[in-house]
Amino acid sequence: MKHILIIGAGGVSQVATVKCAMNTSVFSKTTLASRTKSKCDAIAKFIKERLGVEINTAQIDADDTEAVVELIKKTGAQLLLNVALPYQDLTLMDACVKAGIPYIDTANYEHPDTAKFEYKLQWAKDENFKNANTMALLGSGFDPGVTNVFCAYAQQNLFDEIHEIDILDCNAGDHGYAFATNFNPEINLREVSSKGRYWEDGEWIETEPMQISFKWDYPKIGVKDSYLLYHEELESLVKNIKGLRRIRFFMTFGQSYLTHMKCLENVGMLRIDEVEHNGVKIVPIQFLKTLLPDPASLGPRTKGKTNIGCVIRGIKNKKERQVYIYNVCDHEACYAETGAQAVSYTTGVPAMIGSMLVAKGVWSGKGVFNMENFDAKPFMDELNRQGLPWEIIEMKPGERYEVERKI
Amino acid sequence: MKHILIIGAGGVSQVATVKCAMNTSVFSKTTLASRTKSKCDAIAKFIKERLGVEINTAQIDADDTEAVVELIKKTGAQLLLNVALPYQDLTLMDACVKAGIPYIDTANYEHPDTAKFEYKLQWAKDENFKNANTMALLGSGFDPGVTNVFCAYAQQNLFDEIHEIDILDCNAGDHGYAFATNFNPEINLREVSSKGRYWEDGEWIETEPMQISFKWDYPKIGVKDSYLLYHEELESLVKNIKGLRRIRFFMTFGQSYLTHMKCLENVGMLRIDEVEHNGVKIVPIQFLKTLLPDPASLGPRTKGKTNIGCVIRGIKNKKERQVYIYNVCDHEACYAETGAQAVSYTTGVPAMIGSMLVAKGVWSGKGVFNMENFDAKPFMDELNRQGLPWEIIEMKPGERYEVERKI
Repeated sequence: MKHILIIGAGGVSQVATVKCAMNTSVFSKTTLASRTKSKCDAIAKFIKERLGVEINTAQIDADDTEAVVELIKKTGAQLLLNVALPYQDLTLMDACVKAGIPYIDTANYEHPDTAKFEYKLQWAKDENFKNANTMALLGSGFDPGVTNVFCAYAQQNLFDEIHEIDILDCNAGDHGYAFATNFNPEINLREVSSKGRYWEDGEWIETEPMQISFKWDYPKIGVKDSYLLYHEELESLVKNIKGLRRIRFFMTFGQSYLTHMKCLENVGMLRIDEVEHNGVKIVPIQFLKTLLPDPASLGPRTKGKTNIGCVIRGIKNKKERQVYIYNVCDHEACYAETGAQAVSYTTGVPAMIGSMLVAKGVWSGKGVFNMENFDAKPFMDELNRQGLPWEIIEMKPGERYEVERKI
Repeated sequence: MKHILIIGAGGVSQVATVKCAMNTSVFSKTTLASRTKSKCDAIAKFIKERLGVEINTAQIDADDTEAVVELIKKTGAQLLLNVALPYQDLTLMDACVKAGIPYIDTANYEHPDTAKFEYKLQWAKDENFKNANTMALLGSGFDPGVTNVFCAYAQQNLFDEIHEIDILDCNAGDHGYAFATNFNPEINLREVSSKGRYWEDGEWIETEPMQISFKWDYPKIGVKDSYLLYHEELESLVKNIKGLRRIRFFMTFGQSYLTHMKCLENVGMLRIDEVEHNGVKIVPIQFLKTLLPDPASLGPRTKGKTNIGCVIRGIKNKKERQVYIYNVCDHEACYAETGAQAVSYTTGVPAMIGSMLVAKGVWSGKGVFNMENFDAKPFMDELNRQGLPWEIIEMKPGERYEVERKI
C-alpha cells in the first residue's frame, strides 16, 4: 500500500491516474500535481464521479527540484511518477534522489533547444540513486516501455538468441480533421521531420527523414504505410539484448498527414527559430500549434484502433524462430473507460503498471534501470489485467507482413 | 508630349515606368511616387543606368486624396497612372476629378475587408469625370486589359456576332521554390480560394473554388491544368459584348501549388481574421506572407513562359467561326529588358500603352471607360511595338485545345 505522487496533468496523466484509482489495493493514496492545478482538479473530479475515489491535487513547478522535494516530504509520497514534459526528467530525478523515493517516467530526457533524445544524462544519475538507496525506472510507457518488455519477455522465454527486432507502431485512429497531431504538435512534428536512424552490425545508420518505408499488414487493422524513425527504446535495447544484429523502429503515417507536414515545412511553418513579423518575434511551429486543434480535443472524436508490437527473429533450440508480439487498442473503448484516447491510454496504463511493480517491490533495485533490466513476466501479466492484452503470433522463419517496400 | 504621374512602386510600376522612359516622344516627363520613396528612387536609378532617362520621384500617401491633388498641381502632371494597390482606386480617381486630369488603372477597386472585386463604385464616378471634363480608363493591364482589347478587336473586326468567350491565363514560369506567390500572397491566395463564377444565358453561375477545370494545350507551352475562376474583366465584357451567350475565365495552377494552398487552408494559415497567440493578435495569412519569399525576389530566378489569350466563338458572314488570340511572354526576356518578370511585364506594358493612347488623345472621352469601349486597333498595334506581340489562330468551328475535362 503506497502513496504515489503523479506529476503532470495531460492525457497520459489522466489515464495513469484513473488506473491508479482502479488499483487502490496497491496505491492507497494518489496525489496529482502540475503547474496548472485546475487541470489536476478536473482529473480528480472525473475520478470521483466515475470511481468514487478521492485524489489529492497540488500545484507544482516541476522545474524546481527543491519545491518537488518539499511536496514529497509534505505529502509523504512514497514514489513519484513523472508524466510531465520530457524536459523535466532531470529535475524530477534529482528530487527523488534527495527525497530517497523511487522515480518512474515514460519518455527520456529531451533538451528543449536541441531536440535530442538520449538516456546519457539520465543514466549518469545511476550512482546518485544507488547512494540514495532507491531506484529510477526509465521509459515505462508503451514505446518505450511495453516494447522493451516484449523484447525482454522474448529474450527470457522465447529465444536462445535474438538477432533482429522490428518495432512496429501503428495508429489507425481517425479524428476527422484534415490535419491535427495526437500530442504536443511541436514535439510530434519535430520527431517526424528529423533524420531516421537504426542499428545494424554494431553501428548506427542514419537515413533521411522518411527515407525507408514499407507497407505492413497490421493484424486487426490492415495495410498501412510505415516509416523508419529513430525512437528512444533503440538505445537501451541495443545495450541490453545480447547477440542483437539489427533493430529498427517503424511508425505509420497517412499520406495526407505527410503531405501537410511537407507543405508546412516548405513554407517555413515548422521552423523553430524566431521570425520577425510586424515588430513581434514569432516561432512558426509555435504559431502552428496555436492554429491546430488542441490534442486534448481529439479524444471524444477519434475512432479506430492502434497496434503496437515487435517482430522478433532469432534462434530457439538451434532452429530459426520468428514471433510477432503486439497489443491492439481501440480509441473509443479507451475514451469510454478513462476519458482519453488510445495514444494516451497505451502510455498511461504501462506508466501505472511500472509504478505498481515498483510499489509492490516486484521490480526493485538500487540505481537507474530500463524496462528490460527486469523479469518481464509480471509486467506481461499486468498488461492483460489492466486493459492492454497482448497476443503472440508464431510466424514462419522468413515470413513477412510486408506488402511493399521502398528504400 | 505629356507629363505622367505614376503612383506605386512594385513590379508592375517598374515595368510601366521603364516603358514610359522608352517612349519619351509621348511621355516627355515622368514622376514616380509611392508611400516609400526609396522604392521609387531604386526604379529611377535603374532607368537612369539602363536608358539614360531621368525620372522624378516623390513620396505620397495614395489614400490621401488632397495630398495627391497637391502633388498633381505641384508637378504639373497631365495624367495619372495608378499601379498601387487596388484599395486605392477610389481616392486616386477622386484626386484626378479634382485636378481635372485623366486617370488610368490596371485592376478594379477592392475593399480591403470584403475581398469583393467589382466595378460598381468606380463606374459610379462616371458623372464626376464628365463634370470634370476628363476621363478614367479602367483595367489597362493584361487581364483585365489586353484580354478586353482582344475581345473588342474580335467584335470590331472578326465577327458579326460573338457567342462564347473563354479567357485562358497560363503562367508556366518556374521560380524553383517549393511554394511562392507571384504577387502579394494575401491577394493571390485569396483569389484562388474564392468561389468561381461565370456567366451563361444571362445569369451568373457560382461554382465551388477550383470546381471546374480542364487540361488545355497552350501554344508554345504545352498542356496545363486550368481552373475556372471569377475574374474582373467578365463584369464589363458581359455588359459590352453584345449577343454574348457565355463567358468564362481559366487560370493554370500546378498540382504542387494547389496542394500547398489546400494544406495551408486546412491548418488555418489562409485565415484573414486575428488569432491570439502568446498575447499578440496575428492574422495567419499575413504571417504566411512574412514567411514566403518576397515576390520581388522571384524575378531573377523565374524561367519559362506565359500565354494569355482568348478563344472566341461566333458568327462571321453567316458561318461559324472560332479564333484564338494570344500573347506569349518569356520570363527571362522580360527580366533582362525591365528588371521584372513576365507577371509584372504583361501588366506594366499595357498600363503604359493605355496611358499612351490617352496621352495622345487616340482614346478620348468624358466619363469612366473600360478598355472595350474604344477602337481596339491602335492598342493592338502598340502591343506588337512595345513587347507583347500577339498571334491569331483560326480554329475550326468546334475545335478544342482541351485535352481532358473535369467538372
